Amino acid sequence: MPKLEVCLSPALLHLNNFADSIVVIIDVFRATSTIAAVIDNGANCIIPVDDVEKCKQLGQQIPNSITAGERNGKIIEGLDHGNSPTEYPKDYIANKTLVLTTTNGTRLLHQAKDCKQIITGSFLNLKATCDYLQQQNENVLLACSSWKDRFNIEDTIYAGAIIEQIGHAFDMNDDSARASLQLWRGAKNDLNNFIKNTSHYIRLSQYNLQEDMHYCCEINKHDVLVKYIDGKLIKG
Amino acid sequence: MPKLEVCLSPALLHLNNFADSIVVIIDVFRATSTIAAVIDNGANCIIPVDDVEKCKQLGQQIPNSITAGERNGKIIEGLDHGNSPTEYPKDYIANKTLVLTTTNGTRLLHQAKDCKQIITGSFLNLKATCDYLQQQNENVLLACSSWKDRFNIEDTIYAGAIIEQIGHAFDMNDDSARASLQLWRGAKNDLNNFIKNTSHYIRLSQYNLQEDMHYCCEINKHDVLVKYIDGKLIKG
Repeated sequence: MPKLEVCLSPALLHLNNFADSIVVIIDVFRATSTIAAVIDNGANCIIPVDDVEKCKQLGQQIPNSITAGERNGKIIEGLDHGNSPTEYPKDYIANKTLVLTTTNGTRLLHQAKDCKQIITGSFLNLKATCDYLQQQNENVLLACSSWKDRFNIEDTIYAGAIIEQIGHAFDMNDDSARASLQLWRGAKNDLNNFIKNTSHYIRLSQYNLQEDMHYCCEINKHDVLVKYIDGKLIKG
Repeated sequence: MPKLEVCLSPALLHLNNFADSIVVIIDVFRATSTIAAVIDNGANCIIPVDDVEKCKQLGQQIPNSITAGERNGKIIEGLDHGNSPTEYPKDYIANKTLVLTTTNGTRLLHQAKDCKQIITGSFLNLKATCDYLQQQNENVLLACSSWKDRFNIEDTIYAGAIIEQIGHAFDMNDDSARASLQLWRGAKNDLNNFIKNTSHYIRLSQYNLQEDMHYCCEINKHDVLVKYIDGKLIKG
């Protein structure tokens, strides 16, 4: 039976042996939610970068591309768009390439690059993510992006939501996984209220991003699997 | 209002600014439980050390002292005792000095040494710990020892138990604290069964230490405050 583990912060990733695992990058507010929306809405691919200048350069080099990134709730100067999952409807993003700079999620992508396969997960594409993981019969590491290495609740309960669906098919002697599942079970019946008492919600509410965060909690709204292959996030 | 935060692993301690905080070191299975029992049963003090040789040396130098430490559930060769809270009844330990080597707890003591005050906490001395923290009107950091930096549930729910009692008196915008409280609330009504499904319980059961762990869950059995002052754990 393959094993399933949860990593609660990028600062703890070195404790997990993930060389032979599928790693699910989780950044519910909002990178991996936006990624699910953009891919489901028909973008060719997303190129995640950790550096604003690189984002601008790629935006100039790649035909039909859009640059995106935020700091403190505002579009970064010189980029086209922000990090909201609602900014990219089908008629705008279809067949385009999004060059996206994010803080926490992109770092984890690089940290986990030597694993078997990277996918990204969010409530928006929960089912597609679970279905894929269950079919592979491989070890799984659910990697929470957190915020500047600090544990956060929304990524953790999403890990718990995955475990609730597919945990039975895995060996799971991992306290982080147990805690994630228990936290999810306490949250799921009133998710939209539950998230209001989280540090990320409180922080992002300063920038009036409440609607974004409730959108990020719409389970299975974007039924798409997202894989990270050769530096690009693509439809799996 | 002073703030209260939880640190889920020593590997995350650098994220907390604890210079002006009281830090509560938590190692429920079993270091800080044993510490509470030993101090409550009348030991002069406990000297925590991270090194077995240093433990032996101090044991030879200090009159009326006992050396203690375990690795993998067995007393370390050359030391007198193990790391069980039941090994130190009053008629044995009263007025003695215990030189104790532990893996996780001792490391945290050293990591947190530049804070305002260190105390140690466990279910055995929950009330004494809470009463003290509530009286001080200082910032508090609840620091889980974890196991080799890996998140563990028993330390986390103990942090939640503290928060349930005194959280109302603190500013607490911290997801680790919120999660700790939620996990504790899911555990507290059947603590002895709850702990059976944790990685530490499963690991230590290999060494037949189940009774120890259930002892560690006896709330307020040793109603004593433990402070760390000048390298010694003493009755506060």
